[in-house]
Amino acid sequence: MAGPASLTAMIAMPPLPTTVLGERLMTLAADLNQYSDEPGRLTRLYLSPAHRAAAEAVKRMMEAAGMSAHIDAAGTVVGRYEGIEPGAPALLVGSHIDTVVDAGSYDGMLGVLAGIVAVEELARRGERMPFAIEVLAFGDEENVRFPTNLSTSQAIAGTYDPAWLDGRDYDGVSLREALLAFGGDPEAVTRLGRDAGSVKGYIEFHIEQGPVLERENLPVGIVSAINGITRARGVVTGEAGHAGTVPMALRRDAFAALSEMNLAVERIGARDPSTVATIGMAKVSPNASNVIPGRVDFMLDVRAPDDPVRHAIVEEMVAEMRDIAARRHVALDLDLYFDAPATAMDAGLMRALETAVAGQGIAARHLPSGAGHDAMAMARLCPSAMVFVRCKGGISHNPAESITADDADVAVRVLVDAIKAFAARNG
Amino acid sequence: MAGPASLTAMIAMPPLPTTVLGERLMTLAADLNQYSDEPGRLTRLYLSPAHRAAAEAVKRMMEAAGMSAHIDAAGTVVGRYEGIEPGAPALLVGSHIDTVVDAGSYDGMLGVLAGIVAVEELARRGERMPFAIEVLAFGDEENVRFPTNLSTSQAIAGTYDPAWLDGRDYDGVSLREALLAFGGDPEAVTRLGRDAGSVKGYIEFHIEQGPVLERENLPVGIVSAINGITRARGVVTGEAGHAGTVPMALRRDAFAALSEMNLAVERIGARDPSTVATIGMAKVSPNASNVIPGRVDFMLDVRAPDDPVRHAIVEEMVAEMRDIAARRHVALDLDLYFDAPATAMDAGLMRALETAVAGQGIAARHLPSGAGHDAMAMARLCPSAMVFVRCKGGISHNPAESITADDADVAVRVLVDAIKAFAARNG
Repeated sequence: MAGPASLTAMIAMPPLPTTVLGERLMTLAADLNQYSDEPGRLTRLYLSPAHRAAAEAVKRMMEAAGMSAHIDAAGTVVGRYEGIEPGAPALLVGSHIDTVVDAGSYDGMLGVLAGIVAVEELARRGERMPFAIEVLAFGDEENVRFPTNLSTSQAIAGTYDPAWLDGRDYDGVSLREALLAFGGDPEAVTRLGRDAGSVKGYIEFHIEQGPVLERENLPVGIVSAINGITRARGVVTGEAGHAGTVPMALRRDAFAALSEMNLAVERIGARDPSTVATIGMAKVSPNASNVIPGRVDFMLDVRAPDDPVRHAIVEEMVAEMRDIAARRHVALDLDLYFDAPATAMDAGLMRALETAVAGQGIAARHLPSGAGHDAMAMARLCPSAMVFVRCKGGISHNPAESITADDADVAVRVLVDAIKAFAARNG
Repeated sequence: MAGPASLTAMIAMPPLPTTVLGERLMTLAADLNQYSDEPGRLTRLYLSPAHRAAAEAVKRMMEAAGMSAHIDAAGTVVGRYEGIEPGAPALLVGSHIDTVVDAGSYDGMLGVLAGIVAVEELARRGERMPFAIEVLAFGDEENVRFPTNLSTSQAIAGTYDPAWLDGRDYDGVSLREALLAFGGDPEAVTRLGRDAGSVKGYIEFHIEQGPVLERENLPVGIVSAINGITRARGVVTGEAGHAGTVPMALRRDAFAALSEMNLAVERIGARDPSTVATIGMAKVSPNASNVIPGRVDFMLDVRAPDDPVRHAIVEEMVAEMRDIAARRHVALDLDLYFDAPATAMDAGLMRALETAVAGQGIAARHLPSGAGHDAMAMARLCPSAMVFVRCKGGISHNPAESITADDADVAVRVLVDAIKAFAARNG
């Protein structure tokens, strides 16, 4: 395939009818999602037999699309479509093929298959870029099985901690043992890290997992940043008592106190449209209709694309919660046990994506990512960017997860055009 | 024991040193609470072997105090201390000897033993009233074992429903079978109802189960009414979603909505010092730190000594909860499934108790009863009144339940003096 293939393609290839690329992606998704650890629903945990079968299917899809492909030591499927000059640095495109339990069909898979279909289309056109394109199908994004966090993309990023290999799943199987059973190589995972000079950047397409794009009638949106997260465990301790016999003025109702705290969290979290704050877990004790709650355990989750903003609102929430506790004579024990910084997206890649989105006649909407993604790991290696694709009702991690072939088509076209726009500026 | 015994007593008997009567009560309580269905803690369910043993112990205590005594067809221990004329109508004094699981030592027992010790003291003094005194030890006040409600006092009040006999405990034993095993008589329970003309009234002493008397440094208080109760089951249904990806403005957080409702319930419930309102049970779904709550099930409990006041505040709460639900675009399903009217206490008996309390140099504090008691059943038969005795920390239904011998002493003295004050007006 030497020679000026892209020139040939521009002359010879007719444009495809709309949705052919999207329909191709939907077909590949249906093929891929045959592989499940459980009958009747989609569950594909990292290094499971279904993961192995899915990885091999992805490898075959990559090869059929014109890539050389292999499954790496950590279980990531790596497909490579050479550039004009073989061996050139690569623009990476990817996402993950592991799933949660009883998953939907597109979370992760969309980004992998968009890469495969985009390369397939470039190959069909005979177009090659001044860089290679690698499609990566990561395997450990949902963090369901082992006590890891994005371990397969961290392997590529060069930030793999070998101590993770000793982590065990609920059945007591270590990650090391599971990797060997899968056909991986625990000794080689720490050597998977790429040199920064060998990669041009990383682009990940992913379903939005939220309702913003649907609400605004947009098929895609460009991620501005992956939100930083603060998580806290809390306990409000008041005094249990008989709901009939303790006058209101003498109560120290832990649940009433948490109710007031929850409204403060909600109000402070809603002031800036880019921040979110949630008390999603609350356990009332003793939890009987005729007993004043003596204790409530709860979890607080605060996210923002900007770390100083996040830290400021968390501080304000904590101060207000402490005031509420003091005024109500209840104890508040709050453990801010988790603080993950925000991940900025690369301006250069975002510009290429904006050009591509605009080329589809779509407003380039920017929105933060509230969930974590492999792009968080990859951003430590190279310039990274993400595109969200509208999903029905904002639903994810659920069999009801749904996208349209039209939106999938827009996604693949945006990816193809962004690769070309990036090539035009980074030749 | 014929003749003007009371006159004799007033001449001959020296006053007892303070706390002798209280210490006697504490000794009897310790004796009685040997009888438990479980080793190491006090659990005495209606018609259990421990209940039988305790009933027989109470019968012996009554006889030792100068009463004739028997255990009736429903399991109530009935002790009778004749008046000046045998066979006269009786003033009833009592409470219950059944307990919750892992109970304290005084809930119920205090009222029974106060009656026994008071009669014992009258007998010691050789005093008889122009009416008999009957001490009643009811057996089914806690409603733990069978689906009944105050069945033993309802038997005396003449409101026993024979359908209750078919009710079963968690082991499938019917009340009828349990009564037979206990030595009771299921066929006779509906014939236990007293004629209104045969009873002068009913007085029940009980631990407060709340903190008011302790807070006000009073050993006893006079119950103004037993609160009416409204209970509701509710469900708030919003929309679950990813805590990171759904902007605050697009959320329908069921738990945030219930938090706001809880503060409304608390505020409206606290406006009148005699009313109480509690959301004691709340179950958040799906209850995960990173998921916006889609549903909360809860229970609301509202109590007041005045029924129109209770109905008005419940109506106000419901209206405000519906407004909150509408504003937040969540559904509120509320089932007001239980409405028990308040039970007024008898003015004549309360005056006798006020006289007796004042005679001890204690301010006659009136307070509503937030919990249900056998007096609710007895008030349908005859004039009824209750006295609360201070308990440590307001704690009840718990092994930490505690009263002092000094307060028990005040209680018995108040009972003795109230009986005499009542006799003076109702000879």
